[in-house]
Amino acid sequence: MARTADVAELVDRARAGQPRAVARLLSLVEEAGPRLPEVARALAPHAGRARVIGLTGAPGVGKSTSTSALVAAYRARGRRVGVLAVDPSSPFSGGALLGDRVRMGEHATDPGVFIRSMATRGHLGGLSWATPQALRVLDAAGCDVVLVETVGVGQSEVEVVSLADTTVVLLAPGMGDGVQAAKAGILEVADVLVVNKADRDGADATVRDLKRMVSPGGPGDARWRPPVVRAAATRGEGIADVVAAIDAHHDWLCGRGELARRRARRAAGEIEAIAVARLRSRFGGLGGGTALATLAERVVAGELDPYAAADQLVEGVGA
Amino acid sequence: MARTADVAELVDRARAGQPRAVARLLSLVEEAGPRLPEVARALAPHAGRARVIGLTGAPGVGKSTSTSALVAAYRARGRRVGVLAVDPSSPFSGGALLGDRVRMGEHATDPGVFIRSMATRGHLGGLSWATPQALRVLDAAGCDVVLVETVGVGQSEVEVVSLADTTVVLLAPGMGDGVQAAKAGILEVADVLVVNKADRDGADATVRDLKRMVSPGGPGDARWRPPVVRAAATRGEGIADVVAAIDAHHDWLCGRGELARRRARRAAGEIEAIAVARLRSRFGGLGGGTALATLAERVVAGELDPYAAADQLVEGVGA
Repeated sequence: MARTADVAELVDRARAGQPRAVARLLSLVEEAGPRLPEVARALAPHAGRARVIGLTGAPGVGKSTSTSALVAAYRARGRRVGVLAVDPSSPFSGGALLGDRVRMGEHATDPGVFIRSMATRGHLGGLSWATPQALRVLDAAGCDVVLVETVGVGQSEVEVVSLADTTVVLLAPGMGDGVQAAKAGILEVADVLVVNKADRDGADATVRDLKRMVSPGGPGDARWRPPVVRAAATRGEGIADVVAAIDAHHDWLCGRGELARRRARRAAGEIEAIAVARLRSRFGGLGGGTALATLAERVVAGELDPYAAADQLVEGVGA
Repeated sequence: MARTADVAELVDRARAGQPRAVARLLSLVEEAGPRLPEVARALAPHAGRARVIGLTGAPGVGKSTSTSALVAAYRARGRRVGVLAVDPSSPFSGGALLGDRVRMGEHATDPGVFIRSMATRGHLGGLSWATPQALRVLDAAGCDVVLVETVGVGQSEVEVVSLADTTVVLLAPGMGDGVQAAKAGILEVADVLVVNKADRDGADATVRDLKRMVSPGGPGDARWRPPVVRAAATRGEGIADVVAAIDAHHDWLCGRGELARRRARRAAGEIEAIAVARLRSRFGGLGGGTALATLAERVVAGELDPYAAADQLVEGVGA
């Protein structure tokens, strides 16, 4: 464990782009130990510059391949890129920074790329608790773009939305059609829709369905209308179009003050989540750690309803 | 809105199996208005008897068809059945009780079946806030079995696990193979694995993959090993096997005291979630409703880190 004085030094070294300092800070963040507030304090003045791009979609749509292709595209444009893989099905997941870099193949030896998989323990919705801080580490380390890869379908999209400036939702032909996507609420959260594996049968139909369902903007309608982009990430096809669509969305965000609003909402959600976690840990400590279990047994027995039990818990922490 | 005196009367009428009283209580629960604690108090002594079976799986695996087939199977055994559809992609979703009953086709006129779709607004993970109370309404109304249908993949499985006595995870051939299922954490949460659409190509491979990945119990290993069941719900094939697997799991739960433990965990989670929601609403009220927004802006500006901001929030509610 780094000593107190070391955290500021680590942040300085990370800002200079030293991979070992970045890796050490990411570990401190992921351990979520008692030093986390200190790390957060040291990072705060140096974050807020990176563009955060969320990639989400059901298992099998090609998220990891698309992530890799986007890294290559941004590198070709001279950008420094960070990748946070919060997707438990990602091949980038489950290892340490160096391990991930090795697995990331073509980007393994590129000093302009930082890749980190986040453990899903201690998750909050689809996202690891540590993700927002990990993002600040990569941001402070000079990444221009941070790609956050999460597994989609269901609530995870909502989570990635709260984290990202731009949310890219990936679909694949035959992996649940456009109607399913609409029902799953994907259209509401996507800033960019990518039909990956567009060389497969059914791609035209999926693209057509999605375009029809994305509500067309009327005259004077300033809402963002998610573009539907075709790609075949394994061949690198369509990736330039994906980048262009992300850039167009970024310009839209900046031009309307929406970027600041999104980031404020994100910060509010993060603050609230930390505050809730603190109170939750106090619940766990009540009655020598047995209060909640005792209340739960009384609810199961029908002696108490959960609302009355919750009142007792809230009173117990003095709130 | 029912007067105070009416809630007790509604519960009495629901216990007598009157559909209108059940529908009214479900509406009170779903409105989540100020009367909810009162409804919870009136229900508490009359719940805890029903078996709760969760059905989850990715969009397109046939959850709704399987739910309908299971309803028919339980009805054929003389059981009263409740259905809660928390899946936004479910055809049962989005309507009121009577509307749902009409759409449920063959079960529409069966007085032994209650069907309710839960709005996903106010959701908590993949589940509606109101779901645990709605479950108690159906339980108090004499349902022997309550089927809870949720969309799967990602965190929703974890949510349905915390709600159900037995969790049935549905897969379909070609919808992401066994390896994907393992990566998505499905094997850890499933009590019963169903390969639906088993008449399709690839079903044998999916069944084989899953069976290989479900860890075989050694001698003296008392852990539950999820059976892998083949089904074709649209034809009603394999549904008797699914029911038998659910029954076997129930017997296992009861024989080991695990049912009581699961239900206590479920109640603890519910109590905690209600307590957290109460505290969260207090956060929202701080500083005339502006405290959190102000803290968020300072975090975005890099003046404050989110942990320090959370401390201010927690102090603000007096905890």
